[in-house]
This record gives sequence, structure tokens and C-alpha cells, in this order.
Amino acid sequence: MAQKPSIPKGTRDFNPEQVAKRNYIFSTIKSQFQTFGFQPIETPSFENSDTLMGKYGEEGDRLIFKILNSGDYLEKYFNTIQKIANEVVLGLGQFFDEKISSNEKSEIANNINHKLKELIDDNFKDLSNDEKNRIFGEDFISSFIEKSTIVTKLLEIGKFDENSLMSLSKEIFSNYISKLNSNKLTTKISEKALRYDLTVPFARYVVQHQNEIDFPFKRYQMQPVWRADRPQKGRFREFYQCDADVVGSDSLWQEVEFIQLYDNVFTALGLKGTTIKINNRKILSGIAEVIGASDKLIDFTVALDKLDKIGEEKVKEEMLGKGIPQSGIDKLQPLFSLSGDFEAQIESLKGILSTSEEGKKGIEELDFINEAISSLGLQSAKLQLDVTLARGLNYYTGAIFEVSAPEGVKMGSIGGGGRYADLTGVFGLKNVSGVGISFGLDRIYLVLEELGLFPETIAKSTEVMFINFGDKEALFCLKAVKSLRKNGINAELYPDKITNGKHMKKQMNYANKREIPFVVLVGEEEMNTSVYTLKNMITGEQTKVSLETLITAVK
Amino acid sequence: MAQKPSIPKGTRDFNPEQVAKRNYIFSTIKSQFQTFGFQPIETPSFENSDTLMGKYGEEGDRLIFKILNSGDYLEKYFNTIQKIANEVVLGLGQFFDEKISSNEKSEIANNINHKLKELIDDNFKDLSNDEKNRIFGEDFISSFIEKSTIVTKLLEIGKFDENSLMSLSKEIFSNYISKLNSNKLTTKISEKALRYDLTVPFARYVVQHQNEIDFPFKRYQMQPVWRADRPQKGRFREFYQCDADVVGSDSLWQEVEFIQLYDNVFTALGLKGTTIKINNRKILSGIAEVIGASDKLIDFTVALDKLDKIGEEKVKEEMLGKGIPQSGIDKLQPLFSLSGDFEAQIESLKGILSTSEEGKKGIEELDFINEAISSLGLQSAKLQLDVTLARGLNYYTGAIFEVSAPEGVKMGSIGGGGRYADLTGVFGLKNVSGVGISFGLDRIYLVLEELGLFPETIAKSTEVMFINFGDKEALFCLKAVKSLRKNGINAELYPDKITNGKHMKKQMNYANKREIPFVVLVGEEEMNTSVYTLKNMITGEQTKVSLETLITAVK
Repeated sequence: MAQKPSIPKGTRDFNPEQVAKRNYIFSTIKSQFQTFGFQPIETPSFENSDTLMGKYGEEGDRLIFKILNSGDYLEKYFNTIQKIANEVVLGLGQFFDEKISSNEKSEIANNINHKLKELIDDNFKDLSNDEKNRIFGEDFISSFIEKSTIVTKLLEIGKFDENSLMSLSKEIFSNYISKLNSNKLTTKISEKALRYDLTVPFARYVVQHQNEIDFPFKRYQMQPVWRADRPQKGRFREFYQCDADVVGSDSLWQEVEFIQLYDNVFTALGLKGTTIKINNRKILSGIAEVIGASDKLIDFTVALDKLDKIGEEKVKEEMLGKGIPQSGIDKLQPLFSLSGDFEAQIESLKGILSTSEEGKKGIEELDFINEAISSLGLQSAKLQLDVTLARGLNYYTGAIFEVSAPEGVKMGSIGGGGRYADLTGVFGLKNVSGVGISFGLDRIYLVLEELGLFPETIAKSTEVMFINFGDKEALFCLKAVKSLRKNGINAELYPDKITNGKHMKKQMNYANKREIPFVVLVGEEEMNTSVYTLKNMITGEQTKVSLETLITAVK
Repeated sequence: MAQKPSIPKGTRDFNPEQVAKRNYIFSTIKSQFQTFGFQPIETPSFENSDTLMGKYGEEGDRLIFKILNSGDYLEKYFNTIQKIANEVVLGLGQFFDEKISSNEKSEIANNINHKLKELIDDNFKDLSNDEKNRIFGEDFISSFIEKSTIVTKLLEIGKFDENSLMSLSKEIFSNYISKLNSNKLTTKISEKALRYDLTVPFARYVVQHQNEIDFPFKRYQMQPVWRADRPQKGRFREFYQCDADVVGSDSLWQEVEFIQLYDNVFTALGLKGTTIKINNRKILSGIAEVIGASDKLIDFTVALDKLDKIGEEKVKEEMLGKGIPQSGIDKLQPLFSLSGDFEAQIESLKGILSTSEEGKKGIEELDFINEAISSLGLQSAKLQLDVTLARGLNYYTGAIFEVSAPEGVKMGSIGGGGRYADLTGVFGLKNVSGVGISFGLDRIYLVLEELGLFPETIAKSTEVMFINFGDKEALFCLKAVKSLRKNGINAELYPDKITNGKHMKKQMNYANKREIPFVVLVGEEEMNTSVYTLKNMITGEQTKVSLETLITAVK
């Protein structure tokens, strides 16, 4: 029976025009990445689960797409659990037969526990300790040593015939399974997961290949990532990230380079008037220190980040609610009224942060970057200090970037990034600083579409189509098609021949719908004289030309 | 604790050189696809499971990577099963209290079944019938109506207190779970799967978007696919497919075009001497018909396909073993000694297939294609008839293609394809013919590598690196870097400044290792006179130049 075809929510098909437009953005970004000396790498779509899990917080872990182990993954799990449940209960029966005289419940429980371990070891000699732990897990063991239940049952039954022991085994198994939640099962039946971003796989790559890499390593990567987020306008479950990072250098010149890179890419895309917002984690830490909220840095920045959306009063309320003292919030006042250009804002910050060493370091860094950019100049973007910017605070340790679309375009950030002092530490390579930026392909696409900035020639497909009058004419035409293609012209013959008069119109309509600018007609007469009737589909003009003229006419 | 980083078996990281080489192949193929008038589409990495399952045979289904449902997928399943098991058993207790006098076991069983459905309906009013079936499934229901067990148990117990009923419920639940195999669970906890090839998603795309598509639709698609195959040399779990297909035309000119497309791509890659093997399903059907093995077409072609590997005698043995009569195999003799050029082989086939209408149709098609190709000519490939070619027979209905690497290179096929008369039927769009070819990226890569055919300039990265003597010099250099980049030259400043003498060597070594051809040195003297010391890293030559000269010198 025919299925009604559809695709999973949050995913997309791209038609030829959309692919062409997306490729235009990709290749513009890629070309600038290369001009700046970045080199491409690619990593697998799925990683081992333990490479990804625990790197994005609890919420992130939940949003990672997990891949089911292939083969009989349940046989490896449930069947083994049931088997050992049987073995253990049978073993317990024997054990109680011997120990029935003792009334010491805690001793019995200890012995049960011991017996259990012994049984697992005896019955599953082929498994390593690691495998045993993965298969049986702590929950399984603790469900066996819910002492009171088991002991009471056994004492109650009083007899240890195979039937009642098997019933008990099934009840234990069932108890265990019922208590199993999705998280616990997932770690047992899934060992791979789809990449959630490009940063963690990059960190993994750097550590794994550290001996082949010449540091500082400037890499770019443009690949899809997947997130099980609730889909909504502009948020998808599969989307591309375009990242450039430098790892192995803590030089601030990298920050300067990335600002220029943003400027170059958006200028090349014709997207003028973007704002590159910059902040520094050390500024935020410094402010938190000054207002006596160092221990509430996250709460403080989360509230501050909302200034644009909810306004000064609500931000203050939220801070107060989170336990930041009124006296501290009062000290923030100059922050709320920060205005003027970059230099003026820096001056205000110097006043606020005069007592914080970390804050002063942050100011120094911002100053360095701003001076370099002022001296080098930007083509179409402007650099703006935004002390409320806090994105991804968990990772960033220095500069924080975010790019917003030109004024008047309603759109979240179209790029972002920052510096993280210890990118690869989690994989065992300590003290390697990284700094990087990312481009939001989907949002850039929407902005270019809204502003009409896609070049018209992007989706250029077939330039010349030959009408198919019949097999003899088709063969004649294909020779010309071959020459056109050799000259780099996209050319094709209409697949089906005209079998009666009205199909000619069908072929012309096809050329029209596909917006093919030139159509060539070759009949008996043209074949005999080796000429081609060339029709300009826009003007309707029709001329008889030689092959040479045809090639130059459509080029 | 630091994890030792690794990637899942069968997957790969690609370093900058590998990415550059792969992109060279991609862009060569893509450029030819476009010249031939094909348009790009892209489809999501994962599809709904029912789009993919059942399309690749039992073995294929097993090799599809399934994605776990996100969220509490087990709560939706196990917990509900356990809950209803409780409800059902409690309900049964009540039921037996009323009916205990009757001895008619079959009536009791029917009533149990009825009661079960009632309970599911009563307790899960919020679920649709579809959802109920998905959640409980037939196995669940049948595990309840294993009448003898339940009835016997209840009669045996004789009492229906909550405790014994709950024990019974747990035993039923445990029985059900134990019998559950991975296949059955998978359909319940996984609704999405990674794409296994590009053909099925393409068919789905065509049907889903049929109203937006102008037929005949010539599309190309270059995206990764995933297969849970046992990894081995040259076989990966994630790999790219590069497909071009025409859908909506049964014209043989498409076969002619695809042969030229193969020739163009391999010529453009510098890979001369490939062999494009062609066969036709109708030839195979015709032969099977002639030897009286029409009902054994698959067995026959599978055996014939092995001719190259195991030789004539073993092929005959296998056919005999599959029940193909000796008399039929005798008729095959001319086939084993088919030789000579395309035309000569066609003549032999005409003799063998003179009594098969389908066989004659196949010959006619091959003849048409061969004549057109002879007239149009090929640049570097040769077309060869291979009646033993049977790949993907389940799908193909007409032409079958396979490309082998130049003689002397040990490698399986580097491309393949064919015609399938009913590509989209399974998704509800009948009688739409498709024909297409595929390029095997990984194998083409290996062949180009083996023959040394990758152009040397492919992995061209940074062309000019500026030594970083200090912040003042760096800023001066970045202005020159900016000019170079504007002129399309890949340029960069070494990230970290020289903090003591020996770091200069470090920077030079870095440029050497990355094979950067030019290094620029700018110190106090150069800044004062606005000149740049340009060092050619290959010759070692060092000259002082102006910015203008620098740009032309490195271009």
C-alpha cells in the first residue's frame, strides 16, 4: 500500500534554488576562511556517546539524538538480565537452605549481596568487569538487595522449589524493568549519538590527532549538526554550523582577526551595516566581584543579558530575587546608563572596575582589540562594546562575540563566538586556549532573502535546451550539446522525442518553466545545412546560426 | 577524568589535505552534473522509519541506523504496559469472582480477551487506536490470552487478594518483556532512521513535491549515507554518495547521456582508461526464459555474476545446485564464450535470444545505445557489453551500468547505476520511470591516490605568512595582510609574538611544516621605510620589496 510521504518534524528538503542559495553562502564564507589561512577538517556525523554526553549541560544531553545499537541489542541486555535473575534466585534458594537457621537479617543481606556478585562472576565469565557493569548496572544489583522484600518472601514461602523461585525471579526482573527509566536504558542500548555542535568534535579531533597537527591550528568546519529541540520558526532539528577556530594560541591578535573575518564575510555577501558586539568574561566577573556577587556570576549575567528585552527595572528585580544585595545593584547604576562610543564606554568601565584586578584585565583586552580594529578599519560592519553580552558563559573565558543583522531586520544573532581557555582539557590535553566564531547559515539566508541580496545568477541551471524532434535529430543535436559542454555551457537535449505535433509545445513549456534562456531547434533542413535555429526565450527572437556562432551567442 | 578520545568504528576524521582532495572530486563531479543540466536537491539526514524500512530487503533493514525517540520513551511504553497489566489482572480477579462457577475454559478465554480490550479502552481513553496498537502491540495482547497459564494460575490460587494478583501481573509483564526482541522494541522506541542511500529519499522527495517539479526532473544529490555494515578496508559506516538521476522519461537518450557523463567526469579527473560496462535486465530475463529458468531469475543471475571470480565450471555447478536443468545450462554455452567487440557480442546474443521477445527488446535497447555512443564518441572511457552484470537486480528493469577502474588498478566498481521502471510507486506515484548513476567517492579517491592523479595545488592553504615580531610590527603587518587578502591571496600573521630570540625559529618552522611558500619579515627598519622583507621558503632567497611588488610576487 502506498505510504503518504513526509519528513520528520524539524527537518527540511531543499529544492534546487534553495541548494544554490545555500551553496552561495557556504562558498562565500569558505572562501574568506581560506583567505584568512584557515584549513578545513571534517568529523563523523556520529560520535561515541561518551564524547558528547556531559558536555552541554543536562538540557543539552537531553537534546542529543541517540543512535540505537544495531543487532540484537536487547538480547544482550534483557535476556541476560532475566537469565541472571534466574540464576541468582536459584542460588539464593540454595543459600537459604543452608542458612535458614540464622535470624540476623543484615548478615543475610550481606551474604545475598556477596552471593549475587559471585553468581554474576561465575555465570558470565566471558564478560569483562566493564561489560558487567554496563549490562547489569547498579540498579540491577540494588533491586536484588532490597533485602526486606526478598528475605521476607523467602521466609514466607518457606520452601524453595523451582516454581516459586522462578516466580520470585520474574518478580525481581519485572521490578527492575519497571523502575528502569529511559535515561538508564539509553546508556545500555545506545553507544553512538549525532553530533550536537562542531566545537566538541573539534576538541576531540585536536586531542586525538595532536601529534599530526602543527599548532597554532587554524581550522574551519562546515557540517550539519542535530538537536532534538522543539522545532519552531527558524529553529530546526538538522542545521549547518560554519565554524572557524584557532587553537593553541592566546594571542589577542586572533580576536582582531575574527572581527575582520566577520566584516569580510558579511561585506562579501553584500550584507552591510552588521554590528559585531563584543564583551569579555573578565568584565562580567569583575562586575560581579565589585557588587559582591562573585558567587552568583551565572545568575547575575543571565539577568543582565535580559536588559534589552525586559528593561532595567525588571533586571534589577530579578537580581534582587536571586539574592544579589541592593547595595551591589546600586553600584551597577553606571552600567545601565553606559553610552557613547567604544572608548567612552571603556572609560566608564574603568571607573566601575577600578577595584577588580580581573575586571581591569578585561578592559585591557578590549582596549587592545578596539585600538587594532580602529587602526585597521572595517569595511561594512561596526564594532560595539556590549557589557550585557553573556552567551555561552559556561565555556567562554575571554572575549565574547555576537553579530546582529543590519538595523531594521528582525532577526536574532547571525553569528557568535568567543575564547575558551581550556578547550581540550576534558579530553586530556590541558592548557590549550581556543578562540572561534560561528556563522548562522539559516538566519543569514533569511536576512539575505528579506533584503533581496542573493545575486540573480545563483540558481543558473541549464543555459541551452535542444528540442527533441526525433532520434535522427537528437543524435545530431547531441553532437552540438557535446561541443557546448566542452565550452563550459550547461546544455541538454529534451529527453523525450516529439511523437505528435502537440508535444513540441510541451518541450517549449518545460524550457519556459525551468527558465532556460535559449532553445535550439534542429529539423531536416537544419541538419542538411548544418545550421541551428536559436530561439532567445526572453525576447522571442529566432535566428539561424552556425555551431561556432551558437557557442558565442549563448556564452 | 580525561577520556581517551576515539571515534566510532567505520567512521573517519578527515584532515585538511583529505578534505581538499575530496572536495576536488566533489567539485569535478558537480561541475559535470551541472553542465549536463542536472539540478541539486538535498534531503534530511534522517527520514521517518517507515519511509526507509522495507525498501532494501531484510538485510538492508538490519543495516539501517535507527535513532532513539527523545524524551521519556520508556515511560510511554514500559510504564504503560505495567500499568495496564495491573489493571487487567485486577479486572480479571473481579471477573473470576463472578464467573467462578462456570467450567467452560474457552468461554473464559474469550471473556478474558474481551475484558482486556475493554480495560485498555477504559483506561487509555486518551490514546487513538493507532497509538494503542503501537504501545501494546499484538504480542502484549497474546501474552494475556495465553489462557491456560492465567486461568490455571487463578484457579490454583483460588483467591484474588491484591497481593497475589499483583504478583501475577508482574509475572505477565515479565513474560512479555522477556519475549520482546530488539526488532519489536525498535519499532516502539524509534521512529526515525539515518538515510541508507539517496535513491529512496529521492523517490520520496519526488512524490512529496510532485506539484512543484517540472518533469522530466534531472536532479543530482551529493550527501552522506549511513550503513551499519561490518567495517572493512574501503567499506565505511558513513560515506558519501554522488547520484544523478532523471525521473519521468523512458527515453533511451538518457542512457546515452549517462555514459557520456561518466566519460566526462573521469576524463576531467584525469582518470583515463575506465571501462563502462553495460547490461540490460531484459537480456537476463530473456536468457532465463530461454533456458527454462524464468522462475529462478535471481538464482541464475547471482550465479552468472560470479563468472569473473569463480570461473565457468563453478558457475555451472551453482546453477545446477539451484535446480536449473542441465539442458538449459547447455544452452548457455555461447554465453560463456561471448567475445569480440560490442557488435559481435550483440550478434551472438541475437542467436541465443531469438525465441524471447523480452530478450530481443533488450538487444534493441543495447543496440540503440551503442550506436549513439559510437557516433558521439567517448573521450577516455570505453563502453563494454557485460552480460554477467546484474547488480541491484531487484530494482533495475532496463539498463544496468557499472564502471571499473583502468586496468592494473585493483579496485571494485567505481560507479554504477541503471533504470528502474517504477521508482516512485511505493510512495503512491505510479508509472514514473527513473534512470540514474552513482559515483563511488571513496574508491575514486583511492584510485586517484594510487595513480598520483591529484593536482599538486589542491591543498593550497596559506600562501604568505608574516612573522610576528611584536605588537607594533603585527599591526603594521596586518595592514599588508588585509591588502593581500583583498587581492585574493591567502595570508596570515603568525598568532603569537616573539618573546625571546628562539621563537623566531619556531615561527619559521611552523611555516615550513605547513608548506607555506612565502614568509614576510617586518622589523623596525622595514616599518620606517615601508618595505617588506620577502623570503621564498623554497629557494631561501630573500628580497626587500614594496607592498605592490609583494602582491605581484606571491600571486
